[in-house]
Amino acid sequence: MNDAQRLPSYTLVISCPDKVGIVAAVSQFVADRGGSLIESNHHTDVNQGWFYMRNVISASSLQPGLDQFREEFAALAAAHDMSWNLRDNSELQRVVILASHASHCLADILHRWKSGDMACQIPCVISNHENLRSMVEWHVIPFHYVPVPKEDKTEAFRQMADIVRRHRAETIVLARYMQIIPPELCTEYAGKLINIHHSFLPSFIGANPYLRAYERGVKLIGATCHYVTEDLDEGPIIEQDVIRVNHSCDKDDLVRLGRDVEQDVLSRGLRYHLEDRVIVRGNKTVVFTS
Amino acid sequence: MNDAQRLPSYTLVISCPDKVGIVAAVSQFVADRGGSLIESNHHTDVNQGWFYMRNVISASSLQPGLDQFREEFAALAAAHDMSWNLRDNSELQRVVILASHASHCLADILHRWKSGDMACQIPCVISNHENLRSMVEWHVIPFHYVPVPKEDKTEAFRQMADIVRRHRAETIVLARYMQIIPPELCTEYAGKLINIHHSFLPSFIGANPYLRAYERGVKLIGATCHYVTEDLDEGPIIEQDVIRVNHSCDKDDLVRLGRDVEQDVLSRGLRYHLEDRVIVRGNKTVVFTS
Amino acid sequence: MNDAQRLPSYTLVISCPDKVGIVAAVSQFVADRGGSLIESNHHTDVNQGWFYMRNVISASSLQPGLDQFREEFAALAAAHDMSWNLRDNSELQRVVILASHASHCLADILHRWKSGDMACQIPCVISNHENLRSMVEWHVIPFHYVPVPKEDKTEAFRQMADIVRRHRAETIVLARYMQIIPPELCTEYAGKLINIHHSFLPSFIGANPYLRAYERGVKLIGATCHYVTEDLDEGPIIEQDVIRVNHSCDKDDLVRLGRDVEQDVLSRGLRYHLEDRVIVRGNKTVVFTS
Amino acid sequence: MNDAQRLPSYTLVISCPDKVGIVAAVSQFVADRGGSLIESNHHTDVNQGWFYMRNVISASSLQPGLDQFREEFAALAAAHDMSWNLRDNSELQRVVILASHASHCLADILHRWKSGDMACQIPCVISNHENLRSMVEWHVIPFHYVPVPKEDKTEAFRQMADIVRRHRAETIVLARYMQIIPPELCTEYAGKLINIHHSFLPSFIGANPYLRAYERGVKLIGATCHYVTEDLDEGPIIEQDVIRVNHSCDKDDLVRLGRDVEQDVLSRGLRYHLEDRVIVRGNKTVVFTS
Repeated sequence: MNDAQRLPSYTLVISCPDKVGIVAAVSQFVADRGGSLIESNHHTDVNQGWFYMRNVISASSLQPGLDQFREEFAALAAAHDMSWNLRDNSELQRVVILASHASHCLADILHRWKSGDMACQIPCVISNHENLRSMVEWHVIPFHYVPVPKEDKTEAFRQMADIVRRHRAETIVLARYMQIIPPELCTEYAGKLINIHHSFLPSFIGANPYLRAYERGVKLIGATCHYVTEDLDEGPIIEQDVIRVNHSCDKDDLVRLGRDVEQDVLSRGLRYHLEDRVIVRGNKTVVFTS
Repeated sequence: MNDAQRLPSYTLVISCPDKVGIVAAVSQFVADRGGSLIESNHHTDVNQGWFYMRNVISASSLQPGLDQFREEFAALAAAHDMSWNLRDNSELQRVVILASHASHCLADILHRWKSGDMACQIPCVISNHENLRSMVEWHVIPFHYVPVPKEDKTEAFRQMADIVRRHRAETIVLARYMQIIPPELCTEYAGKLINIHHSFLPSFIGANPYLRAYERGVKLIGATCHYVTEDLDEGPIIEQDVIRVNHSCDKDDLVRLGRDVEQDVLSRGLRYHLEDRVIVRGNKTVVFTS
Repeated sequence: MNDAQRLPSYTLVISCPDKVGIVAAVSQFVADRGGSLIESNHHTDVNQGWFYMRNVISASSLQPGLDQFREEFAALAAAHDMSWNLRDNSELQRVVILASHASHCLADILHRWKSGDMACQIPCVISNHENLRSMVEWHVIPFHYVPVPKEDKTEAFRQMADIVRRHRAETIVLARYMQIIPPELCTEYAGKLINIHHSFLPSFIGANPYLRAYERGVKLIGATCHYVTEDLDEGPIIEQDVIRVNHSCDKDDLVRLGRDVEQDVLSRGLRYHLEDRVIVRGNKTVVFTS
Repeated sequence: MNDAQRLPSYTLVISCPDKVGIVAAVSQFVADRGGSLIESNHHTDVNQGWFYMRNVISASSLQPGLDQFREEFAALAAAHDMSWNLRDNSELQRVVILASHASHCLADILHRWKSGDMACQIPCVISNHENLRSMVEWHVIPFHYVPVPKEDKTEAFRQMADIVRRHRAETIVLARYMQIIPPELCTEYAGKLINIHHSFLPSFIGANPYLRAYERGVKLIGATCHYVTEDLDEGPIIEQDVIRVNHSCDKDDLVRLGRDVEQDVLSRGLRYHLEDRVIVRGNKTVVFTS
């Protein structure tokens, strides 16, 4: 995170089997094309024999254009069995947000976005309630009301998925969206569908975590930002945090105090995701926070 | 926590059904006998209709002796259905510590005790390993080696319980003692048997919490100090804390980082217990931390 | 903080010279009038010989009306040299917010207020910039633009003070208002004028704390919520917090990360103030957080 | 921090003017000699145009011996104007600890060292008091008593410096050593002389930080681990942390609570230093914590 990073830049993220010379190979490739590294992180999982790397390259320093760079890098990537991604940071990601009745996480993201502190586009917000429409529309963002009837949710989810696709969402954020996402969408947006769960997972998986935290008498409550998979609350964790509580807190206090942690953890997790700091492997994440 | 609290003092702890005038009744009782309050906390659980109070009374200010005060208070307590306890803080509690192979929690408690920062007596340490003997004996504390054979633990636990009783333990601390305490001892020392569990409960109940934390990919690890009941890792929680970890931490790193949280949480929990700051009701605690 | 506290209630706050029987005297007074205590805290500063108490009394339980209770309590208060305050919690305080260009603290307070999570009235917002007008007016709160010319601020501050008084502000919040408040207003609103300073005071008193934090190479940055006095950044501290930073953070990163701490600390501090949890004595505060 | 890092390894740390290709040059150099990277961090300070890198290389993977590697690397280093250091991690650093009367920081380091959790040698402990002798000698570490008379400290410091040099100290730790180190030793051990200051610097520089924290009424107290320079409490900061306090804490409570932060921060800072994670430039540090 540097001043220069806010200059035009590309982010190159790779993961592949570890081998001697992999850092040199990638770094030399970039340097040979004049690429100046603004930020660079790598990590070797020695137990798994796996290598992870993230490079932020100054756009103006790179001699070939992005397309040519991408084409040439594909050959290197193939030779090393890389999973990789190259992004032009001047093209902001399209993030569709799903919300229900609670406003805090959505309000926090919208305020950060509006004040230039969350670099993305927000093509629309979808909700199964109407109460947040005015707030969203004040931000000049389209608001779609898609109620989800308890009896049969199929049509609602089809409609929701349509809106998501029509807006060409690259990332979906569940900002306290209180519905279980259908498996097809989980699969389609694997690694791109971000949820905030209102407990420090794996504690209190499932419904009513604050009530259960209250009943168990824990001294910390928390929140977990994770990628959604078909297994509810079991997806790869991006970020977590907690806050201290005590005997004087009743259930409503936990809910209120928890809101602050939820929105902080979600916005941190979303930022890491948007800056391509998160690499998923299996059910775990590498998060290059700095 | 005041200078004055370190003067001779009595601690009076009560809990009872809530009713109008209960604070006044107790406070007036103490004031009528000249008792100067050094520290006083109370808490009303409005949902449960239950009242909790802790008073630290300057010993020199109290006109009747402790025995007379206790006798007179018993009448008030009966009238209000109180559970209550009155302690002379100049009589240090007798704390027996059980440990296994790991030294950090024991070393931390012993150092605090020796430097006058943990007000208790430690009549002995019991361990199922020999490796900590020298450290304990350097502190001029008797060390009892009671091996616990896997096949049949009955005799070992009988022997351990004998030592505990012979030393008239008022509190037992499991300082990473890696054995499940037999139910009779749990019952005998209900609310007086303190364990440190190496996870932020209810996450990772049972064995190998660090391995499971590593496999789940959590971003926080923690520790929980709780009273032991027959239900493993389900007893009333006294204190918890966490520490941040990331993808670069392997399982051994979690173990190492976790040690610091374990010893901090255990020593805080033990201090609260020794200062009569913890009141158990059902499976939860009220902890008057200040 | 209890469900019951959200029922109609009165908050009685006192401080006075400590003496034996003071808790009993106040508690008995309340109990004699049927008053049920929802929450009660007290603190004795043994070194200073000073006593502090806060009681939240269920309104429906109290037999006399508030006026009669107040009148009768005045006699007790006089007998014990008390400073005291009795508030009907159904009458929300009038809080005027002053802001400059930065939006985060203001947005956070407005969102909490709108979602029912910050119990107060906000009769108006005053700013020396126009950029936040739309956000404020969307909340249906009057916005007053009072530019403060560098050459002579007298007239601007006179105008600002007029607006504050016209709106009968009980509390003034400086939500990153980047102007030094004139001494008259500091005096008039002593203990009612709340500022958020963007460092963990007493570090980096004065201008540009983030730049100086960057240059000093600190590993934590923070924020301080305090009452404003004539001595810049020297007033009684209500709340503080910090966040971890490292070498990869440049000055702009510190500013960005600091915003989250600033708004959290200010909203916690303001909440404590509005709930009459803060008692000032000399240049320090007692804050009954639970 | 990996299992593999606990295998035989070398740590190579460099800093130099930033230029395109610097990562590639170093990585290629290591890869050409078969060097497998266990851990690798780099950081570019874009504002200063300065580059920092730390590589942990598997010893068994490296084809040339360490001496040959060092010789060959010297040429590369010269070409890039590098400051650099190459350490064989199997050769534990020699750390001399200076203490005064307080035991907690010393006890913490000694316990970590004894249990294999702080990889260094401790050739001796020097103190200006006798009270810690028994604890040090129990660890089978020589203890040197060097009293420092108030009137004239010259001879004492000469004697202390002699002992330090005789034991060929590579790092000196001031574990709450309450004496100001003479400038010659600061210069001789620049970047190798580590202190723990009992406040979150730059707050409360100088004497009696806890008393001043108490008087200022701060809500957080802290500790700072830093390299000692001739300017008291102004040297480069390695690590800091804080703990929450409140109005119920008197000065002695702050001292007691502060001890835990002091020892945690010192042991973390010392660990970073011993693992060559800290690079000093000017009055700031780069700390590669993972």
